This record gives sequence, structure tokens and C-alpha cells, in this order.
Amino acid sequence: MSDKDKPDYIDIPDTGLFFVALGGVGEIGMNFYLYACDGSFLAVDCGIGFAGDGLPGIDMLLPDPSYCEKIASRLKGLVITHAHEDHIGAVSLFWPLLRCPVYVSGFAAEMLETRLDEAGLLGRVPVNIFQEGDALDLDPFEVETVSINHSIPEASSLLIKTKYGNVFHTGDWRFDEEPVVGNPINYNIFKNLKKEKILALVGDSTNVFVEEDIPSESAVRSALTDLFSRYQGKRLIVTCFASNVGRIESIAQAAEKNGRQVCLLGRSLWRVEGAGRAAGYFKGINVFLTPEEAAEYNPADILYLCTGCQGEPRAALSNISYGTGAVKPVKGDAVIFSSRVIPGNEQAIANIQNRFIAKEIDVITVKDALVHVSGHSGRKDMIKLYHYLKPDMVVPVHGEMAHLYEHADLAASCGIKETVIIKDGDVLRLDIRPATIIGQVETGVLARDRKKILPLNANVLKQRRRMIDEGTVVATVVLDKNGLVVGNIQFSTMGLIEQDDPIIREMDESIKQAIMQLSEKQRFDDKIVIDTLKFCVRKVVMRTHGRRPLVDTHLVRI
Amino acid sequence: MSDKDKPDYIDIPDTGLFFVALGGVGEIGMNFYLYACDGSFLAVDCGIGFAGDGLPGIDMLLPDPSYCEKIASRLKGLVITHAHEDHIGAVSLFWPLLRCPVYVSGFAAEMLETRLDEAGLLGRVPVNIFQEGDALDLDPFEVETVSINHSIPEASSLLIKTKYGNVFHTGDWRFDEEPVVGNPINYNIFKNLKKEKILALVGDSTNVFVEEDIPSESAVRSALTDLFSRYQGKRLIVTCFASNVGRIESIAQAAEKNGRQVCLLGRSLWRVEGAGRAAGYFKGINVFLTPEEAAEYNPADILYLCTGCQGEPRAALSNISYGTGAVKPVKGDAVIFSSRVIPGNEQAIANIQNRFIAKEIDVITVKDALVHVSGHSGRKDMIKLYHYLKPDMVVPVHGEMAHLYEHADLAASCGIKETVIIKDGDVLRLDIRPATIIGQVETGVLARDRKKILPLNANVLKQRRRMIDEGTVVATVVLDKNGLVVGNIQFSTMGLIEQDDPIIREMDESIKQAIMQLSEKQRFDDKIVIDTLKFCVRKVVMRTHGRRPLVDTHLVRI
Repeated sequence: MSDKDKPDYIDIPDTGLFFVALGGVGEIGMNFYLYACDGSFLAVDCGIGFAGDGLPGIDMLLPDPSYCEKIASRLKGLVITHAHEDHIGAVSLFWPLLRCPVYVSGFAAEMLETRLDEAGLLGRVPVNIFQEGDALDLDPFEVETVSINHSIPEASSLLIKTKYGNVFHTGDWRFDEEPVVGNPINYNIFKNLKKEKILALVGDSTNVFVEEDIPSESAVRSALTDLFSRYQGKRLIVTCFASNVGRIESIAQAAEKNGRQVCLLGRSLWRVEGAGRAAGYFKGINVFLTPEEAAEYNPADILYLCTGCQGEPRAALSNISYGTGAVKPVKGDAVIFSSRVIPGNEQAIANIQNRFIAKEIDVITVKDALVHVSGHSGRKDMIKLYHYLKPDMVVPVHGEMAHLYEHADLAASCGIKETVIIKDGDVLRLDIRPATIIGQVETGVLARDRKKILPLNANVLKQRRRMIDEGTVVATVVLDKNGLVVGNIQFSTMGLIEQDDPIIREMDESIKQAIMQLSEKQRFDDKIVIDTLKFCVRKVVMRTHGRRPLVDTHLVRI
Repeated sequence: MSDKDKPDYIDIPDTGLFFVALGGVGEIGMNFYLYACDGSFLAVDCGIGFAGDGLPGIDMLLPDPSYCEKIASRLKGLVITHAHEDHIGAVSLFWPLLRCPVYVSGFAAEMLETRLDEAGLLGRVPVNIFQEGDALDLDPFEVETVSINHSIPEASSLLIKTKYGNVFHTGDWRFDEEPVVGNPINYNIFKNLKKEKILALVGDSTNVFVEEDIPSESAVRSALTDLFSRYQGKRLIVTCFASNVGRIESIAQAAEKNGRQVCLLGRSLWRVEGAGRAAGYFKGINVFLTPEEAAEYNPADILYLCTGCQGEPRAALSNISYGTGAVKPVKGDAVIFSSRVIPGNEQAIANIQNRFIAKEIDVITVKDALVHVSGHSGRKDMIKLYHYLKPDMVVPVHGEMAHLYEHADLAASCGIKETVIIKDGDVLRLDIRPATIIGQVETGVLARDRKKILPLNANVLKQRRRMIDEGTVVATVVLDKNGLVVGNIQFSTMGLIEQDDPIIREMDESIKQAIMQLSEKQRFDDKIVIDTLKFCVRKVVMRTHGRRPLVDTHLVRI
């Protein structure tokens, strides 16, 4: 963005109650929210996003935290609603900027520890563990944590109390009357919250298009128990999201009921197993087997629980599909996807499934049996929540634009008087009605490029796309004291032209001739020589390969 | 594949009737089939496939035609069932190898002409136009073309008659009793075909998972007419697959009933419009307007028909969504996706839709109204076809493994005695029962890299992936007569490190020091110098950027 296109950013005023999403609105992922009350700030969640195909080499996106530099000294705390990467994944990266106390559940603390350790921040970040239901005094905010169900343990909604009124920040949520981990939903808590007079509800929009009831996690456990019983004597391979501790428990319990031990395959499952045990989960479940331990058993007595439910190319399930994994299923065995398909991963997942199907291995997904339920509420429970809480206003977050608008319509149909669609960076004033967007603060998306964090318009990213589309050529040309080429020009044409391709010599000839045809004065002008070389390379490559490469020249004059 | 892993390929015997898919089985796309009868060959379709994310810079896949070299002299003809790219797209590329007469419908001939012209083959390829229902004498094959409905005009199934018996090759097909282009399906033709005693049916598996009835194209036309009437006075933007002439007619007729002129936006729509008019379509439909012509009208009197229904980044619809297109929709206008989502394109399409939704423009898809129907039969019509034809055997093609197995199960449930799942290259003997796979011929997938055709394991493709994952560095080092570095080392680090990054100088220092520490003998050993340089570069880049780049060195000794 050129400077003239930049909006005039505002400072959030020192009086009043404000809400701003630094990430998480208009996209699924990168949840990072700020509340401001009379000049003091509260951050909620600090997550990453996943990059699509348009950013080669980039697998992680981050919300731009620049605005936080301005307010870090007034930031009372960062409260994490739950331990999913899109809510907690950026804490270790941004904490050096935020420098505030971090409030997390016990399980989230365990998950965070590894990341802080990797970032060299262990012991430096003040991590405060809250129990579900605790109230956090972050004056002028009082934050009541409200236990809620989700596809990870210890998810909380937040009731954020201020002198201007209270905001209910749902976080990712669903109601589950029979969860496998955590407590069954207690509707009375929500019914009682109504007394708190909720000024605004900032709410998850993920499943606003889902009309159907979303069954309980315990229904999945039952379905799995039944399903496993149909594969006695066969190999059973199950894949699920690694962070779904409840699902892992469901699978393990269903396996044990069928006389199988569970072997974990894949690093992220072991990581969650460690964090989960440390936080008190997997109690009463047999210890999980390593692949080495499982190898001692009859494969039909094992349930192999794998990473790779999204078709990730290096994950355990992909290896198994290629026949190079720790278990080698054959005709009649089963592979169960206890997971959903994240949009964009359809083909990668289908490719893995097709490899199993080609071996006549049964592939079972949610289309065949209740092997997965969502961790987000559908419309029915959203309506129920609005009925309990009767907020004055709803601000949809955690969704693409389509979700936000649908969510606003749903809230309106529930009698919510005011709904506001915001985008990342919009500063929404909550204490005066109607709520208004008073301006924008700086926001945006950054790309994590391994150890570097880059803006999306970084030159290296443009070059990377150009290298894919058009290729690159680096040529080293040595010129003598007459400005004429000495020896062979050296070319690097990785990813574009094979080293033994005859066009390499053709480029050499073409450049030498073109330089010879320059005047002596021109031959001593580096720019002219370089432009001549680039022109020759591009001309040859366009003719033979149909590409217009990025050309870099190393000129050596001797 | 190393030589030892290569299967022993066979020659198709000179006696008997055989079928082999060179592409199109175990994948959707790249349809390329061969029939052999007593040593003579018939090719059916010759299409391309679309590359996924795993092949950067590649947008088109091709079936490996190598085997055809062996049999080109015995190839009686190539019959094209219809003009979709996955059935016709490789003709211009492979014809120089096949060198046989090509049989196509009139519309397909028009679509092929552009490609042959681009390939410099116009006038050289013997293109024979058949009318639907024609019989082609390609002794020892007699090919009866059987008119069928599909999402492109003039699709045919083929009844391939030989002395051993008859094979019904469905091509892509559906039954439509009220199509918008072409004739309504005539079930009597199929009922009568039963008399021909069909040895084998080689059939489309695309929609084998679709249980529901697939409505007629004319139902789409009605739905569009109704839908358009709800947007009087508003801008209406519709996108569809460019090759779907019937849909374009439906849209145009629905627009005209609502008093709108149709403006085409996007090159591929204009290309199909040209081919369509030349083949006799779009009769009785007003001439389409160019964007320049449409600009003279009130936008509410125009229907803008655009390319880009799959979220293609440079297509008309994408430009419109960014506000840079020929029409600038506002709140209350509508964008209609008269198309399906091809797996893998979900996010690209959602991104475009979200941009419209953010402006409160209505986005309408098949979820909201009957704005699209598939061109492939669902289960019900497949069952109907088997009931009419009663083939002895079914060979599922045109599908991923999941589709092929489901198709075989469906056929078995219809009482088909024999079903055979093959993979690309399997040679299936059809004249002896049970049908057996007698071996394999060479097959595989090639990548079209602009003007080059590469094997999937080509070094440049590996390098391209490596360049994305790890980056590349090219370094030019000049060594004097003592083997010591002269001047600054020149680095090209495109796509990895910005030119002004201080680590460039750090690499320079590190290399100079390392070379100085070599013995004089070592400094004159090119390999040792190059290895030293690579080591230094990788060490610095790993520390600072977390990547292990591909390093190429240009050594200059003076």
C-alpha cells in the first residue's frame, strides 16, 4: 500500500469503552482482540492463521501487532480463551511487544510452555493460570471466565465487566450436555448471566450456516465403539485433530472397549498427550504405545491413532497411505477420519483416501458414521445463547464476511436490537448507542517466513511468486580489459532450465555476440552490459521455454 | 522411478480385443483411452488434467503418450466424445505423435481449431466432422456415435463394434429430457442398443455418489428467469463455465425475458461464443455486447456474464470483486454463481464471494437457488442406463479410486455380472471371460511447463519446490593467483533474502575467512572451495532465516 492510500489511523480515545479486532474478523484464524476502557487495554487471544496457496513457502500468517506498540504500557493483560493455535499461536511471537501478564487455563499453559521455550521466553512471560469460573481483576476490567464446551479442553467465554457495562466475549464455543472432557454445559450459569445486563456480545460465527443439531462428543464415542467392533481381527487406523483431547479420549475408550491398545503416531499427538497428562487428562486411560512398543503386538490388537487428517504430506497418515508408515493396512482393514475437511484440503485428503481405497481398505468419514462433531455451535445453540443472554448488541467475529452477515441476520431475528459488522482495525465504541465505528487503527496480515516475519507485500515474496511463474537466471560474465567476454558465461537456472539443456550454450553465444556489437564505451558501462545480457537471456528463454525470467547478473571485470 | 522398480511392460497382443486407459482412471481429467482389436488401434479422447498445488508453476497435466509411438502406425483414428479440455485438450500436443485421422463433432471442431492453429497444425491434422448418430468405419472398428446430454454441446457416447463384440463407451453423459441445446434424450435409442449385445460398458463415474435426481437444464433456465426478475433496477452479474453453451443460452434467454442485454466479460467466453455461433448455436439470441458497448447502457439493463466462477485470480469476476472490473456492483446488486465448486477451489471462490458480501452485494449459489445442474448423471440415471443396455461387464473410468469402486458396486447391484477396476496402463482383455488384466503398458503423468513437457520427477520441478521451501543462493567468487578472494562476493538471493539485508555482508565475511583458512593446495581445488562456500552460506542462512538453501557457485579464477 502506498502512503497516500493509507487511511488516517486514529488513537483510541481515553474515555469510553471500545472494541477492536486486530485479527479474526473477515477471516477464520488470527484471533486477536482488544478492549479499551478509559485508556486502559485488555487483549483477548493472540492467534495465528494458515496461509493459502498464494504465498509459496509461507505456512503461517500473523495479525499485524504494530498498533500494540502504542498501547503496550497500558495493556492490563492478555486473556486466552483456549489453546487452539488460532487463539494462542502468536503469544510467543508477540509477547516481547505486549509485555503484559498472560492469563490461561492449566491446559493452555501446558501447550504454551513448549512455544515459549522455543522462543527463549520461558520464565520471562508472567503466565497466570485461571480455573474455569475464576474472575480476573484487570482494573478497569473485571473478567469473569465462563466454562464452555469446545473441541479442546478448558475453553472459556469471558464476561468482561466495566463501569460502562458488560461485554460477553464468547470465544469458540458450543453447548455439550455430555462432553467427554470438562463439565456438561450448565445452562443456569447462562440464564443467570442475563442479570448482568450485557451491553454487547462479541461472538463466534463459524457454524452460523449449520441448521442441524450438533450431537454431543459422547455420541461420537458411542459411534466409534460400535464402529470399531465391526473390525475385529483387522487393522484399525484413526486420524483426528491432535489438539482434540476429548476426541483422543473418545477414541481410546472405544478402543479399550474393543480390547485394543492405542498407539500414537505423529509428533503433535505426543505433544498434546504430554500437555494433556500434565493438565490432568487421560486419567483412567491406558498409557499410549509408541510404534516400537506396538510392534510387539498383533496389529489387530492395536488402534493406530495418527496425525494427518488434513492430508498433510509428511504426517503419519500420509506415510501409511504410501505404505511407508509404522502400520501397513491391507484389504478389509479400516481407516477412519474422525475429523472434518478444512476448506482447501479437499484434494490432499482425497488423494490419501484414494490410495487406501485402491487397496480395498475401508475409508470411513463423517459421511458414513458419526465419527466427528464440530466444536462450534450451530444456529440452534446460537439462538439459545441469545435467548439466555439477551445482549443489547451483537458483534459477529471469527468468520469470513459471509459468516458475519449471516450471524448478524440471525441475531436480528432473535430480537437483538443492534448488530454491527466490523472489519479488522475498526474501532467500535460500545458505551454510546448506537454503537459507532469511530475510525481505524493500524492492522494487517504478516507472513511468518521461518525465522522472519514479513509484510505480505515483501519483495522476497513477490520474487518467490515470480520465480515460480517465470523462473530465474543468474549469469556471471567476466569481461577483460577490452570489455569483451572471457571464457564461458556461467549460468544458474535452477527450477527453470536443466544444466545440460543446449539453450544454455545458446544464451552464452547470444550474449557474447550482443556484447561484441556494443561500442567500446558501452562495454564499459555496467548498466548497458547488464541490460544487454538480460535482454538476451529473456529473448532465448521466452522462445524456448515460454517464460520471462527474473535475471540477475554478476559482472566481473578483470 | 528407478529402473529396477519399473514394471515389465507388455506389447498388446495381435489377437483379441483389449482396452487400456492411458489416462482418466484413478483421476478426474486426462481422459485418453485405447481400444485394440487384432493389432489395430482406436483412440478415444485425448485430454489434459489440472495440476494441484504440489507442482508450482505447472497448470496443466498430460497423460504420458509414449506407448502410442509403438502403435501409431496401426492407429485407425482418434474419436473425441466432446469438447471439454479434459477430453480434447491434448490433441494439438499429441497429434504429431499419433498422426491419425481425428473425428469430432462440429462444435468440437470449432473449439479444436484455435488450439491447432496455436500449435501450427491447422490444415495438417485430418479433422473429420461427424453428426450425432453417424457411424465411423475404422475397420476393424465400427464406431456408432450416440447422442447424449452433457454440459457442452454435441457430446456423444460411442458404441464400438468389433468382431469380438461391442463396447459401449459412455464418455461424459447425463440424460436430459429438456436440454437447452441439443436434442432431448431419446430413451428408445438406448433401449434398442440392448439388441447389440454389449460385451462391456466403459463408463463415467463422476457423480456416482450423487443420490438425488439431477434436474434438467431447462429448470435452471426457469430458475434464472425468476431470480433475475427479483433484481429489477439492480446490477446483475453471473458467472458460469465458459464451455457450457447451454447454460450461456439459458442465462441469455432468462436475461432477455427480463429486458436485459447480455455483456460477455472474459476471453474464454468470447472464444466459446465464436465457436458456438460457427457451429450454429446462440440462434435467436441477441448478439452479446462487449464491455465497451455495454458501457453505453444503464447497468440495470445489462446482465454481465463473466469468466472466473472458480475464483481464478485474473478472470473477470475476480477483477469485479476488487472493484477493477467493467462493472462496479454496489449494495443490493447480485452476483450469481451458475456453476459448481471444483474441489480445491473452495477458498479462492469464498474469497471472491466475501469481497462482494462485504459490500452487501447478494451472492447467490446452488445453495440458494437452482442456478446450476451437473452435466454428469447421478446414480439413478446410471441405474437406468444399465437397465437399458444390460452390458455383460462394466469398467468404471473417469473418476478417482473412490468413484471407481463405488461405481463397480453400483453396477453389481444392477445385476451386472462382471466389474473390473483398472488403473492407468492396465491392459484389459475384453473378448475372453472373465476379463483379465494381462499386463501393463507404459503410462504416467507429464507436466506442461509452458513450452516444455516434463516428467513429474524432472529436476527443474524438484528444484522449484526446493526454491520455495528452502530458497536459493547463487554466489560468484573471484579468486586471485594465490587462491584468495578478490573484492566482494556477489550474491543473488531472490525470493529468500532482501539485497540490503546485513547478512549478505556476513556471508561474504564468513566465506572469505573460511577460504583464507584453507591450505594453498585446497584453495586451488575448485570442489573444496565450492563446498566451503556452500557450507558457509547454509550456516548463515540457517541461523538467520531458518532455511537450508540450494547454493550454486560461480567460481572465477584470475
